[in-house]
Amino acid sequence: MKLIRYGDPGREQIGVQLDGINYDVSAFGGDYDEAFFADNGLARLEEFVKANEGKLIPVPEGTRLGSPIARPSKILCIGLNYRDHAEETGAIIPAEPIIFMKSTTSLSGPYDDIIIPKNSTKTDWEVEFGVVISKKASYVDESTAFDYVAGYVLHNDVSEREFQLERGGTWDKGKGCDTFAPLGPFLATKDEIEDIDNVRLWLTVNGKTYQDGNTRNLIFNVPYIISYVSQFMTLLPGDVISTGTPAGVGLGFKPPIYLQPGDVVELGADGLGVSRQTVR
Amino acid sequence: MKLIRYGDPGREQIGVQLDGINYDVSAFGGDYDEAFFADNGLARLEEFVKANEGKLIPVPEGTRLGSPIARPSKILCIGLNYRDHAEETGAIIPAEPIIFMKSTTSLSGPYDDIIIPKNSTKTDWEVEFGVVISKKASYVDESTAFDYVAGYVLHNDVSEREFQLERGGTWDKGKGCDTFAPLGPFLATKDEIEDIDNVRLWLTVNGKTYQDGNTRNLIFNVPYIISYVSQFMTLLPGDVISTGTPAGVGLGFKPPIYLQPGDVVELGADGLGVSRQTVR
Repeated sequence: MKLIRYGDPGREQIGVQLDGINYDVSAFGGDYDEAFFADNGLARLEEFVKANEGKLIPVPEGTRLGSPIARPSKILCIGLNYRDHAEETGAIIPAEPIIFMKSTTSLSGPYDDIIIPKNSTKTDWEVEFGVVISKKASYVDESTAFDYVAGYVLHNDVSEREFQLERGGTWDKGKGCDTFAPLGPFLATKDEIEDIDNVRLWLTVNGKTYQDGNTRNLIFNVPYIISYVSQFMTLLPGDVISTGTPAGVGLGFKPPIYLQPGDVVELGADGLGVSRQTVR
Repeated sequence: MKLIRYGDPGREQIGVQLDGINYDVSAFGGDYDEAFFADNGLARLEEFVKANEGKLIPVPEGTRLGSPIARPSKILCIGLNYRDHAEETGAIIPAEPIIFMKSTTSLSGPYDDIIIPKNSTKTDWEVEFGVVISKKASYVDESTAFDYVAGYVLHNDVSEREFQLERGGTWDKGKGCDTFAPLGPFLATKDEIEDIDNVRLWLTVNGKTYQDGNTRNLIFNVPYIISYVSQFMTLLPGDVISTGTPAGVGLGFKPPIYLQPGDVVELGADGLGVSRQTVR
């Protein structure tokens, strides 16, 4: 199943994508939020969609898509989790996963604009494979980690490199700016992705390919990450863990290449669709 | 006004503290959450309390207190913001504020136990003066920063030093463990604190004083911090910014002193009450 949310920012309605067409399911009630995932929402939604087959109303063409999930309690990210990306940034291959957090106010829709923050000159891109948590997870064993997965989502982990790396302290200043977490176009439930260890993910800027990686090159894989993160904090239903970006970010070029107003970033991953953001 | 929340974890009711006694105000409706602060809740609550003077029902003695605010979108913290604390940890005095985030799942009540995480040997304390945001704040000017303040709250920024400093990456691993953010006993509205640049804050472990500082020694003061943080991300109503801890944390001793099961941590700040946590 592919879950979408559509409509104006902050007033999104829920929907599903069937054969490439977005349908409204707001009659199902609620939102794709913590309560939905915690209350077996995915299974109930599947029943609802089956029961209403052929009767669902398509979302009007041109309607804005929002993030496919409502604002979660947290967006966690794994840093430097592809060998090639760690190398391009000059960092050492980490001995254990690097965890950082993105402010949840950075969440935006898959086709929303990326807004360069005031005083920013180093806004960069990062295509990522995101995992959405289905139920409360604390001290999870790697062998049962998939029981805690609702599905997967495409994520552009937009990053301001000066704020992140040159302004002191942790990375949080450069990761959580508004519009820095375009998510979607849809949340693909677990069953939609055949082999999560073989998902190609790519990113272009103005049509030129900068990133072209595959989850097979992850240093720490999805079950390991879920288990690891859950040793440090409790994951809640709807929480997002973004698993890291492959090589090809702007910071890795000599000289570095950063986003400019008018640039168009397009990204995609096998089974997770394509998103596109214009920079302004 | 002093706002409290009481009852079982996750099912707290709202209340106010008047002359040291906690009263139920659940008839006011809702919770002390983003919607409450955004919708002028403080002013409406004040009217409600006035209108019901003498008719409010006290909360039964011995009832648990929860965090005085519901789970916010984010808990931001300023690192190394007291000169003496920066020095004791061996860190350089920061040129600009250090920002890090605490997972909101770390939130707990002022008298709840602190649970030492599995595999932890370095759980430490940090008494802090916390600021609660009243309205959406982005690119706020220092001169208008107080317009965005709902009030202040006592915070123990519990920290696992090995997770924070020795496990790679940012500080987030050691800051967001469950029970690592006891907040309260109450939220004191802005008018309750006469001079926020002269608030004594202290912390004892098993009756011995370890921290005894004053906000006058903050490197970056409250309006500066609000303005600064809002350059990097949008603050939402109910968000917490914890302003840093003075000297006297366990990490600063030679050899360091860390919390053990059975230890009792007590902390307080002028105008913000006293909280107490037992370690287990």
